[in-house]
Amino acid sequence: MLVVMQAHATEEQVRAICQKIESLGYRAHPMPGATRTAIGITGNQGEVEQGTLDDMPGVQEVIRVSKPYKLVSRDVKEENTVIRFPGTPATIGGRNLAIIAGPCAIESREQAFAVAERVARAGAQFFRGGAYKPRTSPYSFQGMGEAGLQIMAEIRERFGMKIITEAIDNESLELVEKYADVIQIGARNMQNFSLLKQAGRTKKPVMLKRGMSATLEEFFMAAEYIMSEGNYNVVLCERGVRTFADHTRNTLDLSIVPAVQRLSHLPIVVDPSHGTGKRNKVTPLSRAAVAVGADGLIVEVHNQPDKALSDGMQSLYPEQFAQLVGELRSIAGAIGRSLIPAPRSAATVAG
Amino acid sequence: MLVVMQAHATEEQVRAICQKIESLGYRAHPMPGATRTAIGITGNQGEVEQGTLDDMPGVQEVIRVSKPYKLVSRDVKEENTVIRFPGTPATIGGRNLAIIAGPCAIESREQAFAVAERVARAGAQFFRGGAYKPRTSPYSFQGMGEAGLQIMAEIRERFGMKIITEAIDNESLELVEKYADVIQIGARNMQNFSLLKQAGRTKKPVMLKRGMSATLEEFFMAAEYIMSEGNYNVVLCERGVRTFADHTRNTLDLSIVPAVQRLSHLPIVVDPSHGTGKRNKVTPLSRAAVAVGADGLIVEVHNQPDKALSDGMQSLYPEQFAQLVGELRSIAGAIGRSLIPAPRSAATVAG
Amino acid sequence: MLVVMQAHATEEQVRAICQKIESLGYRAHPMPGATRTAIGITGNQGEVEQGTLDDMPGVQEVIRVSKPYKLVSRDVKEENTVIRFPGTPATIGGRNLAIIAGPCAIESREQAFAVAERVARAGAQFFRGGAYKPRTSPYSFQGMGEAGLQIMAEIRERFGMKIITEAIDNESLELVEKYADVIQIGARNMQNFSLLKQAGRTKKPVMLKRGMSATLEEFFMAAEYIMSEGNYNVVLCERGVRTFADHTRNTLDLSIVPAVQRLSHLPIVVDPSHGTGKRNKVTPLSRAAVAVGADGLIVEVHNQPDKALSDGMQSLYPEQFAQLVGELRSIAGAIGRSLIPAPRSAATVAG
Amino acid sequence: MLVVMQAHATEEQVRAICQKIESLGYRAHPMPGATRTAIGITGNQGEVEQGTLDDMPGVQEVIRVSKPYKLVSRDVKEENTVIRFPGTPATIGGRNLAIIAGPCAIESREQAFAVAERVARAGAQFFRGGAYKPRTSPYSFQGMGEAGLQIMAEIRERFGMKIITEAIDNESLELVEKYADVIQIGARNMQNFSLLKQAGRTKKPVMLKRGMSATLEEFFMAAEYIMSEGNYNVVLCERGVRTFADHTRNTLDLSIVPAVQRLSHLPIVVDPSHGTGKRNKVTPLSRAAVAVGADGLIVEVHNQPDKALSDGMQSLYPEQFAQLVGELRSIAGAIGRSLIPAPRSAATVAG
Repeated sequence: MLVVMQAHATEEQVRAICQKIESLGYRAHPMPGATRTAIGITGNQGEVEQGTLDDMPGVQEVIRVSKPYKLVSRDVKEENTVIRFPGTPATIGGRNLAIIAGPCAIESREQAFAVAERVARAGAQFFRGGAYKPRTSPYSFQGMGEAGLQIMAEIRERFGMKIITEAIDNESLELVEKYADVIQIGARNMQNFSLLKQAGRTKKPVMLKRGMSATLEEFFMAAEYIMSEGNYNVVLCERGVRTFADHTRNTLDLSIVPAVQRLSHLPIVVDPSHGTGKRNKVTPLSRAAVAVGADGLIVEVHNQPDKALSDGMQSLYPEQFAQLVGELRSIAGAIGRSLIPAPRSAATVAG
Repeated sequence: MLVVMQAHATEEQVRAICQKIESLGYRAHPMPGATRTAIGITGNQGEVEQGTLDDMPGVQEVIRVSKPYKLVSRDVKEENTVIRFPGTPATIGGRNLAIIAGPCAIESREQAFAVAERVARAGAQFFRGGAYKPRTSPYSFQGMGEAGLQIMAEIRERFGMKIITEAIDNESLELVEKYADVIQIGARNMQNFSLLKQAGRTKKPVMLKRGMSATLEEFFMAAEYIMSEGNYNVVLCERGVRTFADHTRNTLDLSIVPAVQRLSHLPIVVDPSHGTGKRNKVTPLSRAAVAVGADGLIVEVHNQPDKALSDGMQSLYPEQFAQLVGELRSIAGAIGRSLIPAPRSAATVAG
Repeated sequence: MLVVMQAHATEEQVRAICQKIESLGYRAHPMPGATRTAIGITGNQGEVEQGTLDDMPGVQEVIRVSKPYKLVSRDVKEENTVIRFPGTPATIGGRNLAIIAGPCAIESREQAFAVAERVARAGAQFFRGGAYKPRTSPYSFQGMGEAGLQIMAEIRERFGMKIITEAIDNESLELVEKYADVIQIGARNMQNFSLLKQAGRTKKPVMLKRGMSATLEEFFMAAEYIMSEGNYNVVLCERGVRTFADHTRNTLDLSIVPAVQRLSHLPIVVDPSHGTGKRNKVTPLSRAAVAVGADGLIVEVHNQPDKALSDGMQSLYPEQFAQLVGELRSIAGAIGRSLIPAPRSAATVAG
Repeated sequence: MLVVMQAHATEEQVRAICQKIESLGYRAHPMPGATRTAIGITGNQGEVEQGTLDDMPGVQEVIRVSKPYKLVSRDVKEENTVIRFPGTPATIGGRNLAIIAGPCAIESREQAFAVAERVARAGAQFFRGGAYKPRTSPYSFQGMGEAGLQIMAEIRERFGMKIITEAIDNESLELVEKYADVIQIGARNMQNFSLLKQAGRTKKPVMLKRGMSATLEEFFMAAEYIMSEGNYNVVLCERGVRTFADHTRNTLDLSIVPAVQRLSHLPIVVDPSHGTGKRNKVTPLSRAAVAVGADGLIVEVHNQPDKALSDGMQSLYPEQFAQLVGELRSIAGAIGRSLIPAPRSAATVAG
């Protein structure tokens, strides 16, 4: 931490700050400047409560320097985290991009299988679908619950894709852990610390979506909550943030991808469906997400978007998705990444 | 809903939209204009899924008109909701302002009683204090839990103040319901729908804080979740939103107070402590909150802010709080509101 | 400035940074910490270009400490700036609040006089009205130009109010300086540095509106541009900032009032009309602005808002304004400020 | 426009609104719904002043439907605008991407030529460099003025690149028009309507940067100002918007690229240098900008970034830029776009 003194602070005031700092068990480093003095503090582990020094006489400002996250940081682990799924070539965080696709919500066995067949054939290694839906309105469709999870488990058997689905509270988390391969924590729960801790006690990888107005540091701290309970397999997911801009539902912040990769070893994927909220923006932003260096994509696909019970407006048609994957293959190649080849045929998939 | 057609949309495309609307069971009202046609839709109850019409040929834009909230709305209940606490003059939502004060967190019996004694004497009718703290860092103090709730229950006995404290998950909610008079749902949980529903099944009033980037409609919908389960005693709380501005921790949005009061019958209070994050801003913004018409204030007060385990930086000293209450009394009077007189003396309080 | 080194930075890298700093003519203050080293820099006057140190090996982050504004700061001038208008009791920045009112735009002599008569009688000391209107659309009414300025000069003669009006470029600035008492620089021009410098060369006070997404520091720097040319009579004006919130046109950020007053000697007034964009929010937010400690208010009033050529939606009716001024008088009294008494009668004004 | 009535509005109130609408010369289309009535308005050209209907009894809300921009819209011109530069293969808006590069500011003939030589060789067709710099601080380097323009004119002669540079007021605009090939209007002047109109009267193409908090509609309206004066060669430029996010200086909003392309025929380029403010983010975001479909890029390159007089922190080294262009070539190919081949050799360029 750094204490910046006012221009007209007296020597006595500077001394008082230094004594206070030392009394708290830290070291004070006064640095007299041309117009004012600044005092560095070392020895603190980030836990010094703000407010201790702010209102002492002569203080202009207190600036925090150390970052509060540890386990997510490259300071602790330099090499990238790669999450593997035994028995499959799928990874999240390696050279191959993770392609995750499926409907917003599991609506029926028929709908889910129809979508799954198409996205598997197009080259997705992961199937997404909501069984528990956090909806803005209590009067909207809230998901099929465990029945939806069972459908997804069948899809894994049938198509070989790994399953990602959201848990919204401790009850659903237990079931999601049981049925799915990756547990999703949604944007609205990014700071539901009780849920994060519980997710940290599971044995499955967790995909954590960025909150609607989360800074990079808050995003990291939410991941730190999960990791601090012993679960190190965390995937971050950018899904758009809230701004004044109204041409998309959220503003997709692709710059967080290189920012995460610089500071953390965790993989980061991008959700262009929620990130834009409009079907006609999903394809261009998916391309951009791969070009910026994301470790994967999570895309909503629906066989009949205009009959979807939720988010139909932002779901791709299966043929749009298939075409998109083809484009992503070229872009990935242009920047030294790759996609796992799609299975030869639907039959192969089915086998 | 209203469908705006493109300038060059054909009559056939307009007809197709109308047929689609009718096929969904609604009425279509085409309105040919100078440059384009718009089509009104009536008969819908707000549940029509967006995306059904957006991508049909010739459509420029689909605009939602009906508001999705019902129980929070003055359309359903015109007169103000006033929450009463039998056996005390305290109310939330009436002519008298609700004055809520206390430390950010309950740290010890001694600290809590010291603060309680001071805020009761200054005129607070409600005591706030966190037993379960949602902290950004997993390494920060997380609250005393049930022990903290027991201390607050003692404070109610001793000083006659009603208790407001936060629940962060279903487990803590059960305990908070048991010990407290008002259940607080924090900003980070404003869209933790599972928790909202559970709160809606309790018998205690709920104070719902606005999420960090919640629109008015989302704020209302969160309250609707609670009310839709049968609990109509909901208090809204503005506590600052996230913006680019960096001179305060959050940007306190006082304009939401008249906006809420125009559309909803629910009371709304303001939290200038979290709303600014800086002690020297709490007093001016508290005065402004009363002047704008808020139904109450929730203010952090600590007897030793520089030793506080959380949020010391934004806590008032007890004497600052006492002075503030005096000022608020005058301002309330200037706009036709009032404060319940403070008890005659600490002795009276203690009695 | 402060350079924070990476956790694994070598001593050699620290040394290289220090040498670089010294080579630029400053002093380096290395502070080894528990997990990393930070290096303080003194002797710089804020002009060190960022980027010099950021990419040197081992550097984690460079933090700026000194504030770049000087003339606006209380470091340079401790006592409040009070702008006086010889021959009148009106001031901006003193104990009395400056009450500024009038239509958004001067539309005709008749309209302007009708509004002026009402606001003068209600107690306004300053008359506002636009002769040059910065409109979002090139097809909207752009103002009467010099003819509008002449009408306002007549109003000054007739009603004794001082005139505030906006200049939008160097041409209009010359005319505004000639006719008006206070030159307004609008939010959209807050960083039109060419115009700011020109305004700094005039002899009239300048009211500078905060840009739609200006931080406090940028706001101060814009004022610094004016002051650096020799014009020290600058009034700041908060008029709402752009956020995601959609219940008002802008989000009025009242917390900037105490923030400005803490760091700067310049007066600050509030514009609740543009700050909310809705008539029914103007009165409550005006009350709040006075309660928070603003040095004045600038309010749009129109005799026939539904026929206004611009911003009719946010203009008060004259009788609403008169009632508002009465309320403000009480609130000002409650916090130790006051309003100049309104003239005895319209006749007196007219005299 | 659409007037939404309150749920309990009377038939009489509905009738009054309709009469008011007709009295203004428009047609009213009342649509009785299940819970409330909405009234469509046609015949208006977008000039109806808001506020006329908002406060009439029974009105809940007035919603604007028609878009106020015309000349920028695909409604007026369906095919893409392609800006050509006779005598060169360079275009903005065609299949080939426009690659624009150079230093933030022209600092000296030597510096400018050194950078120009490198970026020309790497494949830039346009050279950027500031002669008039809008700086936040009046104490920062403000640009070389006309001397800088002359250096750029020499660079055009020497390297065959077209020149883009910023005008900040009417005076500089005249000179920029004289020396440059494309006139840049900066983000801070996006709503300097006086300057926009003047730019609309020049004969040179104008590159208009998006304001820091401009919506898509405001961005279009600013372009409309230029076009309404007769200059149809407008290039839009996304350069990041202001949000709460603090890991980059601005938040680059790539989703505006497909949004612009859907509604307007104007070309749009992306500025990843200002859009991120950090050198290590420029390359990934440049790749993303091409992948999302931008019509070009404007990138800051400096031969000695750590000695740059402005924005050194975000400038690429020449070799980084050359490598970036190679990557862009592959990405462009993957989505059906292309880059003009770089000149064979520096000698060729020099010839």
